[in-house]
Amino acid sequence: MKKSKPRREYNNRFERGMKVLKRMGREKLMLNQKAISEEMYDMSVGHLFGDVWGRPGLSLRDRQLVTLAANIAMARPSGNHSHYLSAMHLGITKREIIEIMIQVGHYTGWPTLSNAVRQFTEILEEKKKMDAAKKAGRVYHSKLL
Amino acid sequence: MKKSKPRREYNNRFERGMKVLKRMGREKLMLNQKAISEEMYDMSVGHLFGDVWGRPGLSLRDRQLVTLAANIAMARPSGNHSHYLSAMHLGITKREIIEIMIQVGHYTGWPTLSNAVRQFTEILEEKKKMDAAKKAGRVYHSKLL
Amino acid sequence: MKKSKPRREYNNRFERGMKVLKRMGREKLMLNQKAISEEMYDMSVGHLFGDVWGRPGLSLRDRQLVTLAANIAMARPSGNHSHYLSAMHLGITKREIIEIMIQVGHYTGWPTLSNAVRQFTEILEEKKKMDAAKKAGRVYHSKLL
Amino acid sequence: MKKSKPRREYNNRFERGMKVLKRMGREKLMLNQKAISEEMYDMSVGHLFGDVWGRPGLSLRDRQLVTLAANIAMARPSGNHSHYLSAMHLGITKREIIEIMIQVGHYTGWPTLSNAVRQFTEILEEKKKMDAAKKAGRVYHSKLL
Amino acid sequence: MKKSKPRREYNNRFERGMKVLKRMGREKLMLNQKAISEEMYDMSVGHLFGDVWGRPGLSLRDRQLVTLAANIAMARPSGNHSHYLSAMHLGITKREIIEIMIQVGHYTGWPTLSNAVRQFTEILEEKKKMDAAKKAGRVYHSKLL
Amino acid sequence: MKKSKPRREYNNRFERGMKVLKRMGREKLMLNQKAISEEMYDMSVGHLFGDVWGRPGLSLRDRQLVTLAANIAMARPSGNHSHYLSAMHLGITKREIIEIMIQVGHYTGWPTLSNAVRQFTEILEEKKKMDAAKKAGRVYHSKLL
Repeated sequence: MKKSKPRREYNNRFERGMKVLKRMGREKLMLNQKAISEEMYDMSVGHLFGDVWGRPGLSLRDRQLVTLAANIAMARPSGNHSHYLSAMHLGITKREIIEIMIQVGHYTGWPTLSNAVRQFTEILEEKKKMDAAKKAGRVYHSKLL
Repeated sequence: MKKSKPRREYNNRFERGMKVLKRMGREKLMLNQKAISEEMYDMSVGHLFGDVWGRPGLSLRDRQLVTLAANIAMARPSGNHSHYLSAMHLGITKREIIEIMIQVGHYTGWPTLSNAVRQFTEILEEKKKMDAAKKAGRVYHSKLL
Repeated sequence: MKKSKPRREYNNRFERGMKVLKRMGREKLMLNQKAISEEMYDMSVGHLFGDVWGRPGLSLRDRQLVTLAANIAMARPSGNHSHYLSAMHLGITKREIIEIMIQVGHYTGWPTLSNAVRQFTEILEEKKKMDAAKKAGRVYHSKLL
Repeated sequence: MKKSKPRREYNNRFERGMKVLKRMGREKLMLNQKAISEEMYDMSVGHLFGDVWGRPGLSLRDRQLVTLAANIAMARPSGNHSHYLSAMHLGITKREIIEIMIQVGHYTGWPTLSNAVRQFTEILEEKKKMDAAKKAGRVYHSKLL
Repeated sequence: MKKSKPRREYNNRFERGMKVLKRMGREKLMLNQKAISEEMYDMSVGHLFGDVWGRPGLSLRDRQLVTLAANIAMARPSGNHSHYLSAMHLGITKREIIEIMIQVGHYTGWPTLSNAVRQFTEILEEKKKMDAAKKAGRVYHSKLL
Repeated sequence: MKKSKPRREYNNRFERGMKVLKRMGREKLMLNQKAISEEMYDMSVGHLFGDVWGRPGLSLRDRQLVTLAANIAMARPSGNHSHYLSAMHLGITKREIIEIMIQVGHYTGWPTLSNAVRQFTEILEEKKKMDAAKKAGRVYHSKLL
């Protein structure tokens, strides 16, 4: 299999990653990675989004569903806020997001449900500010992203 | 909202849970719970499957996707083998399951990917034995379920 | 067993849940759940507090002890602050809470101990503000709850 | 405070740890630690059981309750089987253990409940073998401990 | 082995712990533990730093490496910021810290990498403030420590 | 930075990954991944070992140290046995491994220490069988790898 693959180059993957990020409305994220290490940022865009999120075999919507689920499950202090935004950007409804919280919460514990509610509520507030700023021609940089 | 809901009874939820379990091919599971506590089993069937899995707002396939993702993420020693079976029962393909492993593995660590491969490989072996036994009119009780 | 159970109705469980919450001094919590989904709130009050916390077979104090322990163990970013308050409301002493931190910390790691100390210290500060506000006839809404 | 404490010696703590282990019926455990490192075993007996479990301020029963809860929560592949045995040794009933599983399971996810059921069922089987061996004057060494 | 050990006293371990803490530039930490329980603080300094970090058999640098790795892996909301500071104090370079994030992140998930970047960036900002305050003869107490 | 990098090709990374795996004595692992998905195996060898483990900026020994630490911390049911072997292959001593268990165990809980002892003891037994088989010209395939 390895041999039959066309010889692709690494640099292409950065472009492919950026395309995926744009489809998800995430193209301005991970800049704190870029600030401390260009190579880390390059790997996040190129490998994670170009080579993993960009794979065939599972729709972008389904990749977002399972990523949201994994992140709700792990209940880490940061890193999931942006996935609520990209989920909505990809057409996953608020109702579906709530159902994912309930479903996953039963497999990883009620506090993961309530932590998800807290983070989702926070990011909905931030989204309002970002949208208002955009309308006014300003940029609002959210500390949650 | 609470008031407008028709007065449903608890016992119905056990039946509703069993219906969901049958659609998923899982109706013979959780019997070790039944063996130590009827009430625990009743809650697992009635609440988890009747009241949670049976909710509208998210398709059964999507509930299975996010549950599989949450379980791969947590990498617990037991409890996920059966979800590979019900995922396939619901029409999620082997290819999709592999992509879920790759996708989730990047959010929860490579060993969760390799642990998922190990558990999936084990349950595919068990499934062969269960299917062969079924053909021969016997029952094969898998220790993994 | 299932058959012999009196036919209880779902709505009762919400009332039972509220009663448990009042005994624990928690009746004003989970309102951010209510804000995004009445049904989620209904399930949290009715199932988690009415049907789980309200079960016989383990005292309310012991349920609080093991819940506090599980939450200290998981060290999630939110969701445990309120349990220090309800623990004290139920008569668990500050000394006992400190011993639980030390005991659990040895089973889940020193940073879970120090994270618990941090959260406990934070909520003791908040409690002072809430008590002062109450005395003054005002309401202080803590962001930690 | 440090100064007012009587000058206790390290070696005493090993003896104190062994006393606690005997009260819990655990004095023959952790021998695989001893096999690879005497000092590790010394620290487990002396510090964990002598200096932590042996502390005043929380009853031995309560320490066992919260330890069981923390371990059910973490759902690690090994290390909790023995705590079901010491819990029963200390008088915590089977019914209480089941209620702890249900209570903790709601805070850490249904698979932690079902994993606990699996481990508890396994150790009850092992206990039968150990008890039968004891009656017959033999020793049965369980691989789960 | 136990018998051949010289009879050391507990109080010595507090001093030994403080020495280790000074070598790591951490001697002013864990004061919130001291505020709620002198004994907890005593155990943290004496056992964790005196008896664990102070052990021979693994260099202080290597102990810091594996501790940083374990903490990045667990992605707890607090408790790791200080370890970036002590790592740098012990001569671990910024480049090495970034490589640890990339390496560990692949074993515990991309969000643990990005959470580490966030925490490291935060603490570098705090360090600037602390250094500036020191120069000016003031003390800056960071909320992250 | 991205532009200045020489245009490397994906296929090279598989070879680079294999070289790293050989230095670590791991070249025969992850074959169960290959059995279910060539592409997954390709990514594990090429990305994880070729592009991550093969990076400059942190020695191979240090990458092994922090990986071992992260895996002991997470206490997953599989995936860490092989890292004890590669650690020893890279010259990390048994004593150092024991110290890593003690150090990490204090940051992630005593059961992660005892789980590590269990897994290390198991793999030392397997290693004896593998070495004996090798001497006899046979191959012993360990189920733990």
